[in-house]
Amino acid sequence: MDNIKYNLPEKEMPVSWYNIQADLPEPLPPYLHPVTKQPLVPADLAPLFPMELIKQEVSQERYIDIPEEVQEIYRQFRPAPLYRARRLEKALDTPAHIYYKFEDVSPAGSHKPNTAIPQAYYNKKEGIKRLTTETGAGQWGSSLAFACSQFDIELKIYMVRVSYNQKPYRRMTMEAWGATCVPSPSPDTGSGRAALAADPNNPGSLGLAISEAVEDAAPRDDTHYALGSVLNHVLLHQTIIGQEALKQMEMAGEYPDAVIACAGGGSNFGGLALPFVRDNLTKGRKTQIIAVEPSSCPSLTKGLYAYDYGDVAGMAPIAKMFTLGSNFMPPPVHAGGLRYHGMSPIVSHLKKLGLIEARTVNQLPTFEAGIQFARSEGFISAPETNHAIRAVIDEALRCRESGEKKVLLFCHSGHGHFDMAAYEAYLSGKLSDYEYTDEKVKEALSCLPAV
Amino acid sequence: MDNIKYNLPEKEMPVSWYNIQADLPEPLPPYLHPVTKQPLVPADLAPLFPMELIKQEVSQERYIDIPEEVQEIYRQFRPAPLYRARRLEKALDTPAHIYYKFEDVSPAGSHKPNTAIPQAYYNKKEGIKRLTTETGAGQWGSSLAFACSQFDIELKIYMVRVSYNQKPYRRMTMEAWGATCVPSPSPDTGSGRAALAADPNNPGSLGLAISEAVEDAAPRDDTHYALGSVLNHVLLHQTIIGQEALKQMEMAGEYPDAVIACAGGGSNFGGLALPFVRDNLTKGRKTQIIAVEPSSCPSLTKGLYAYDYGDVAGMAPIAKMFTLGSNFMPPPVHAGGLRYHGMSPIVSHLKKLGLIEARTVNQLPTFEAGIQFARSEGFISAPETNHAIRAVIDEALRCRESGEKKVLLFCHSGHGHFDMAAYEAYLSGKLSDYEYTDEKVKEALSCLPAV
Repeated sequence: MDNIKYNLPEKEMPVSWYNIQADLPEPLPPYLHPVTKQPLVPADLAPLFPMELIKQEVSQERYIDIPEEVQEIYRQFRPAPLYRARRLEKALDTPAHIYYKFEDVSPAGSHKPNTAIPQAYYNKKEGIKRLTTETGAGQWGSSLAFACSQFDIELKIYMVRVSYNQKPYRRMTMEAWGATCVPSPSPDTGSGRAALAADPNNPGSLGLAISEAVEDAAPRDDTHYALGSVLNHVLLHQTIIGQEALKQMEMAGEYPDAVIACAGGGSNFGGLALPFVRDNLTKGRKTQIIAVEPSSCPSLTKGLYAYDYGDVAGMAPIAKMFTLGSNFMPPPVHAGGLRYHGMSPIVSHLKKLGLIEARTVNQLPTFEAGIQFARSEGFISAPETNHAIRAVIDEALRCRESGEKKVLLFCHSGHGHFDMAAYEAYLSGKLSDYEYTDEKVKEALSCLPAV
Repeated sequence: MDNIKYNLPEKEMPVSWYNIQADLPEPLPPYLHPVTKQPLVPADLAPLFPMELIKQEVSQERYIDIPEEVQEIYRQFRPAPLYRARRLEKALDTPAHIYYKFEDVSPAGSHKPNTAIPQAYYNKKEGIKRLTTETGAGQWGSSLAFACSQFDIELKIYMVRVSYNQKPYRRMTMEAWGATCVPSPSPDTGSGRAALAADPNNPGSLGLAISEAVEDAAPRDDTHYALGSVLNHVLLHQTIIGQEALKQMEMAGEYPDAVIACAGGGSNFGGLALPFVRDNLTKGRKTQIIAVEPSSCPSLTKGLYAYDYGDVAGMAPIAKMFTLGSNFMPPPVHAGGLRYHGMSPIVSHLKKLGLIEARTVNQLPTFEAGIQFARSEGFISAPETNHAIRAVIDEALRCRESGEKKVLLFCHSGHGHFDMAAYEAYLSGKLSDYEYTDEKVKEALSCLPAV
């Protein structure tokens, strides 16, 4: 019988993260201070992050050791399995070989604990007693809640209101792990109150929730802020995904022709893709690296590569990135984790340099793909993950036409157990597609900071 | 670093199920026909089950081969990991070693696919196009929906109404896999209509839902019925749990002093425990085998060992078992999978012979245990599983008092991702305990069949 899954032995779990900054053909543009517009210095970030994470943010070291305490928690669910999607291949009648790296196995059900655990660890080590964060669909918030429960850190989560209402079970998981979760915009912060005053029905956005979490944390000595995507240290921690996948593809005796992942802030995409970008850069590989975005929030494909605020209120650092403008309010699609106006600076930089490509898919075809996946592979996937599945199915169908035996690898970033209401809405015909229009582009980009 | 999980290599997955009927010191009492009250013959079951399953039901062979087609689907999530609960041990400050067999990794999130897959397979092989079944909390219904999607079989599920209302996401998973799910009692069957006529607010029970599913299937040539617990062939299929656990405990270099699982119909309990009962019977081991029941539905601890109907309407076979009476309507506790009036004949027989023991735990302490588990081990557990966790924690705390270094092994039968409303109700003080009273025993047992 052929292999269905490839389990890397526990002792072969990678013990360092891969830092792509060491291999970039051009260095990343620096972050700028949101007020002075001058390049950030480490001290500027100290009110928000522990020094170890600030160092990682700008490190040029190729590999950074994973602390023992972090490895110990990783090893509860890592190495994560790599699956060969044999039943999906059969259902598609494709000559392509489809593999997926399965991040659903963490306690929080997604790849997010890969960075939540080290972030909680480094904060604990620096004596921090309390963290704040934002969350979209709730995968990040629940992952950080899990991580904080492991290190006995208090946690307050600002959850984008539309997701807070759509996904009550996600909030309940955060509470089960001991965290406090409020809908954003909230009356608890100045930026939340301002947004509510302007529109009491404000559905919220990641950019706004970040403002609230930053505003809560910055003035308090015992409190730091944690971000689940976008930043360099987050993508760094996620590279354990791709490093494991490389070893597992070797077990399978294949090397991917294309590496595919959905991209909102860029963390699961970067986590899987960066070690393959490294191999393209340093080993002469020519793997296609594909980021998949929602049509409703297409920063990489329709955004501008410019300096922009990371949040709505302009309190977070200014970063050079593909952006739809920090005041862009994405439509309430169910893939809450992909509703962010910007894109990780690393992913943006790679796109600008032509080292990766990007595609958009619309909401209905992603759910269609998720249902096809559930009825063949069995697993029910997160709406975000369905974006990657859609792109993989499309690629596999093209292979059926062309006869190409491409090897496709994608990141199954998380399960959809808390998104069943979205599936029901889809199955009962209540979901719709959303297109981002050029008018919106102009409108949204009118608020870029003058730098 | 010490091991946290023990992953059995895929090639060491057991390729046969263990049939305890080969090793019983006394044979199982026969099933009786619900109308004639005479011992059942295979032909009596043919309208409901494929012949291969009927043969397995009465087989005296010690090991039964797992078909290749079933192994192939098993191998997507099996062997399931065995965890050492190091962080829970630390939180309890106990000298006990706690292990758990982690069945959450199946697509449906519980142990139920272990029997759903072979049942769908044998039905498909016999040309069956459609199955009916009942489900309590929905773990069985969703597992059979997953299995039927793999073998292209139509499925109709009668879901106990109280759970249907409490756990809408479970129903949505069944629909995502292509099944139809209705609340029971339903207007679709005679037994459903009768129950609704007597009480339009009837919360339903597993016994009643079985009646509906059997009534739907029996007269139709293209339709069979499938049961997710209780029967001998179900426990047979589940023994892969215990057989894997035996190999994994060997990897860990220990042998359990106690094997613990929750018991409703008995399938996860039997699945983990039967291979250990075998070792007690044939290898002189003295492992304590403990079934954990809810105080609200204590068949093994307060029921009568008697011949009783498997369902409310008296259409299912009569079995010798511990029972609270087939008309017993358990209170609406959240552990829907444990709300069954009877107990597997095998488990009942073992209890009667003194080869296993049973305990009850009440609802609130089980959720308290589940929260403690989530905040130490990370995983959020099904309310059913929390019964086992409660008993394990109690045992580990006793070890702290006595200083005993007991090795405890329990079945983590499934995750609680679809039970978050129950956790919220618990955390906000809205849940209560339920005690089964002696009066209820008398009342419920007044309807036993005269055999």
